[in-house]
Amino acid sequence: MHPALQTYLAGKITLSDEQASIVSRCFKTKCTKRNEILVTKGSVARYVYFVVQGCLRVFLTDDQGNESTRFLILEGRFGTAFPSFILRKPSIASLQSPEPSQLLMISYEDRQTLYERIPGWETMDRIGIELDYIESIQRIESFISLDARARYDTLQQTNPEIIHRLPAKIIADYLGISQETLSRLKSKK
Amino acid sequence: MHPALQTYLAGKITLSDEQASIVSRCFKTKCTKRNEILVTKGSVARYVYFVVQGCLRVFLTDDQGNESTRFLILEGRFGTAFPSFILRKPSIASLQSPEPSQLLMISYEDRQTLYERIPGWETMDRIGIELDYIESIQRIESFISLDARARYDTLQQTNPEIIHRLPAKIIADYLGISQETLSRLKSKK
Repeated sequence: MHPALQTYLAGKITLSDEQASIVSRCFKTKCTKRNEILVTKGSVARYVYFVVQGCLRVFLTDDQGNESTRFLILEGRFGTAFPSFILRKPSIASLQSPEPSQLLMISYEDRQTLYERIPGWETMDRIGIELDYIESIQRIESFISLDARARYDTLQQTNPEIIHRLPAKIIADYLGISQETLSRLKSKK
Repeated sequence: MHPALQTYLAGKITLSDEQASIVSRCFKTKCTKRNEILVTKGSVARYVYFVVQGCLRVFLTDDQGNESTRFLILEGRFGTAFPSFILRKPSIASLQSPEPSQLLMISYEDRQTLYERIPGWETMDRIGIELDYIESIQRIESFISLDARARYDTLQQTNPEIIHRLPAKIIADYLGISQETLSRLKSKK
C-alpha cells in the first residue's frame, strides 16, 4: 500500500494483510501536470482523489469564463467534485491540480467495494465526510461573518505554506478578496 | 415510532419490530415555542433534531449582537449545530425554532447506539450526511457565483412556502441580501 495512504489510515483503522491488499487494489496512482484538469464542468466526477503531493482545486466558471475557487484540497486529504461524484450527475464545478501533483484515486464502484468488504471502512469514511462537511460549514461562516483580514489569518493558521505555493489569484479568489487586498494583508504580516 | 420518522425511514431502511422499538426509544419528542433557543452560542449541541413540524434556524451572532442565518432546517429533515455536535465543542452558532415546532431529538450517545445495534443505520446516516454536505457546497457556490435574483429563485424552487412562513429579515439574511432587495424580488414574481 502507498505509504502516504498507510499514514492516513494509521490510528483510524486496522487492516489484515488480505484487507490491505484489497485497499491497495482499489487505489490507483496518478501524477498530474501543473494546471491539469481532472474533472471538466459538465462531466461526471468518477473518482475521489487522495493528495499524496501537491494540491487540488475545485473551481466554478461563469459565462464570461471567470473562475472562482470553491475548495482547495491539500496534501493528506481526500477530495473531488463531490456533488457530481455522489449524485453521479454532470459537475457544475471543475477539478484541477494547480501544481504538479501525485494522487491516489478510487472509483465510485471501488469505494462501495471497500464499504462492503472492509469492516470499519464506512465508519472511517462517515467520520471523514462529517469533518469535510464541518469545514464547508466553517467556510460558509467565514463568508457570512469574517472580514478579509480574519479569513486570511484563518488560512495563515491552518495552511500557511499554501499561501506561498499557489498563485496569488487563486488564494485571493479562495478567500473571496481582491489580489490588492491579499498583497496588503501579506505585507502587514 | 412517530409516523413522521416512519415516513422518513420508509425506503431507506427496513427494521424488525425489535429494531423499531430501539429506534423509538432513542428519539425523544420536543415541542418548542416561537423563537425558542435550542443551542446557545458557547454551549455544546448535545442532540440532532428531526423536524416533524415547523423549522429550525442555525444562526451566527457578531459582537454587536447582529444575527446572520447560516442554515434553515425544514420539515422532514435532520439538523443541529453540526460542528459542535460532532466535535463536542462549544458552538459558534446558535440553534433556534423561528416558528412553534414539533421535533424529535436524539443524543450523541443514542446515535452511536443506533450505529452499533441497527445494521444499515450508519449507511443511511452516511448518505444523509453526504447530501447535507452537498447542500452546504451548493450554498457556498451560491455565495460565490449567484446574484440575489438567482439565490431567490433557487429558494423559490426548492422551498417556496418558507419564503412566506418566515420573517422577511430571516429570509433576506439567509440569502445574503437586504430586505429591500428581497421585497423587490418578491414583487417581481
